[in-house]
Amino acid sequence: MPGIVTLTTDFGTRDSYVAQLRGVLLSACADLRIVDLTHEIAAHDVVEGALFLAGAVPAFPAGTVHVAVVDPGVGGERRSVAVEVGGQRVVCPDNGLLALLARTHPIEAAHELTNARFRREPVSATFEGRDVFAPAAAHLACGGALADLGPPVSGLVELALPEPEHAAGVVRGEVMHIDRFGNAITNIHASMLQDGPDRARLHAAGRELALLRIYADAEPGEALALVGSSGYVEVAVREGSAAETLGLERGSAVRIAVVR
Amino acid sequence: MPGIVTLTTDFGTRDSYVAQLRGVLLSACADLRIVDLTHEIAAHDVVEGALFLAGAVPAFPAGTVHVAVVDPGVGGERRSVAVEVGGQRVVCPDNGLLALLARTHPIEAAHELTNARFRREPVSATFEGRDVFAPAAAHLACGGALADLGPPVSGLVELALPEPEHAAGVVRGEVMHIDRFGNAITNIHASMLQDGPDRARLHAAGRELALLRIYADAEPGEALALVGSSGYVEVAVREGSAAETLGLERGSAVRIAVVR
Amino acid sequence: MPGIVTLTTDFGTRDSYVAQLRGVLLSACADLRIVDLTHEIAAHDVVEGALFLAGAVPAFPAGTVHVAVVDPGVGGERRSVAVEVGGQRVVCPDNGLLALLARTHPIEAAHELTNARFRREPVSATFEGRDVFAPAAAHLACGGALADLGPPVSGLVELALPEPEHAAGVVRGEVMHIDRFGNAITNIHASMLQDGPDRARLHAAGRELALLRIYADAEPGEALALVGSSGYVEVAVREGSAAETLGLERGSAVRIAVVR
Repeated sequence: MPGIVTLTTDFGTRDSYVAQLRGVLLSACADLRIVDLTHEIAAHDVVEGALFLAGAVPAFPAGTVHVAVVDPGVGGERRSVAVEVGGQRVVCPDNGLLALLARTHPIEAAHELTNARFRREPVSATFEGRDVFAPAAAHLACGGALADLGPPVSGLVELALPEPEHAAGVVRGEVMHIDRFGNAITNIHASMLQDGPDRARLHAAGRELALLRIYADAEPGEALALVGSSGYVEVAVREGSAAETLGLERGSAVRIAVVR
Repeated sequence: MPGIVTLTTDFGTRDSYVAQLRGVLLSACADLRIVDLTHEIAAHDVVEGALFLAGAVPAFPAGTVHVAVVDPGVGGERRSVAVEVGGQRVVCPDNGLLALLARTHPIEAAHELTNARFRREPVSATFEGRDVFAPAAAHLACGGALADLGPPVSGLVELALPEPEHAAGVVRGEVMHIDRFGNAITNIHASMLQDGPDRARLHAAGRELALLRIYADAEPGEALALVGSSGYVEVAVREGSAAETLGLERGSAVRIAVVR
Repeated sequence: MPGIVTLTTDFGTRDSYVAQLRGVLLSACADLRIVDLTHEIAAHDVVEGALFLAGAVPAFPAGTVHVAVVDPGVGGERRSVAVEVGGQRVVCPDNGLLALLARTHPIEAAHELTNARFRREPVSATFEGRDVFAPAAAHLACGGALADLGPPVSGLVELALPEPEHAAGVVRGEVMHIDRFGNAITNIHASMLQDGPDRARLHAAGRELALLRIYADAEPGEALALVGSSGYVEVAVREGSAAETLGLERGSAVRIAVVR
């Protein structure tokens, strides 16, 4: 069966960058199946890209090849890599994009993309997605080996992200991401709520919110907290936007305490 | 031939929700062909979703499976269903999303998605798209039967939409949708113009407009009315936006009278 | 192998227009592989569409069929055509969309879409993408001949675009496109810099900028010029937006001089 290559970028689709990338993939291997994950990562926002990959990659079947390009350092000193993770492969700049995925799905092998045979020459200094990452992905998706692309490397770049803190029965974290619905997804995982969500109360933006099970447990327009589909606690407004209603944004402080 | 599964949601593509849905589909059935219809339905806007499906579904070939998720009541009391319509299938929450399609293409069978075998456990209370609708769609697209998914149901939820009214040779309706070009599409179908469009005059936003045949029959920047590609009367501004120029929005009143 | 059909439009994806187009393609030829290039061309902006095609089409393999619809004159006097270019085919209105592609990749044959057999009747006067271009593209992608679609035509419509001017060692041009990152791409091609980029200085928005090799050669937030991935000189701000920071927009004047 033809290989699946997914694309995750901050390119948008109004310019022809993604189209060029697709053309290069199909030129290398005409029966590839290309699947867009997103091209709407905020420009240059490696943290948003890393969160996206941590959510998306685990849902895909073994054998999938992911191309991920959020690359403010393009053409510079940062390495380009291809990694193996849970039977899938990811091709991307080594700038922290894999750091969050790697917490739950350890990287099993990483190779630097140095082999000129799997590049599109001349390599544009500003568009390695087209000239380096896409040809490497096509090689892998057509059955090629990771080791063909270059030598093994270790010590992938980490992301310095704020971690939630436990103290005296209180978990202090922050908003990690605002989603399309205006839900404010925190960095507090459900597993950190030692007594479960039932007696927990979330404090954010001067409000105290119970952790409910579903959006529809609140009234339309009412704020609530709940454990979202990724396992992280989120703040929502039923049929509205928690970000707008409560003034939450990435980095806003959030605290969860247990009611005795 | 591998089955076609289309996706229609209000998820946007900046978050990883659609990517997870795709991953689940491909994990269930690796050779599925996934076709995005839209992820830009306004958040929670069931009416916009219903209009979209009424326009899009009839263009697809028999055998297509459509996943449609605009689901403000996710996790709550509303039913999840899979229906057969014109040789195609649609999997969606039963909240009115099918109401407009059903007016022109009667629902031939509907089953509730109760069979736990075709769910991804544990089902997230906030993301049934991934855990309920996608696995059901994969089952259908891989050749499975509708009846496998759960018992037959009837009485799908209707949408309470304003209907145009005829009186004394005048049709009164309203704007149903503003499209990307700023065209204001009304709920008045061409078939309601008893004497045809030639002598009809549309009144909206304090203007009287003739019904022309094509945009280019007006001057650049000039307002006009015409019968759009869906068969409904729309108000347009040539190479401009009727919504902006005339201040039209969903719900704006529109009246069509015949010139004697 | 099933044929590849790409889509380039100004339709957006919030309305069902693209979905209908896809449905018609798949109804005509169920195993087509449909690839979205963009639906985000600015409404009615033929120049932006022409720039997009000039960047995207050359990356695709021979045999690809491209549907391009940016069509302010839909239903009017402009011709509908299918052309052969470098072993690929493009189906589009004859309104200048091909003019920039044709400068680097000469059109080898052009036929007008007059054969009613390859239309979806009745043809909507406002949506020829669905009723004329999609059926023609499906015919080509399923192995049909260009000549089946209608008679050969010549004299495709040109675009009147400002051309850069050389005088006394100075090249004067302008900004042609602002990309998603806020990079301002000019109409000055690297090949016009007779002494190469090293001693060239770009003047725009009251600033003098050296031509660097990559974005990372500047400091974060600093403006620079460089030769972009398309071969054209662009103005950028590292990890920022040149359009916003320098107030550049399409049509802004740009001048490149050589430092002696």
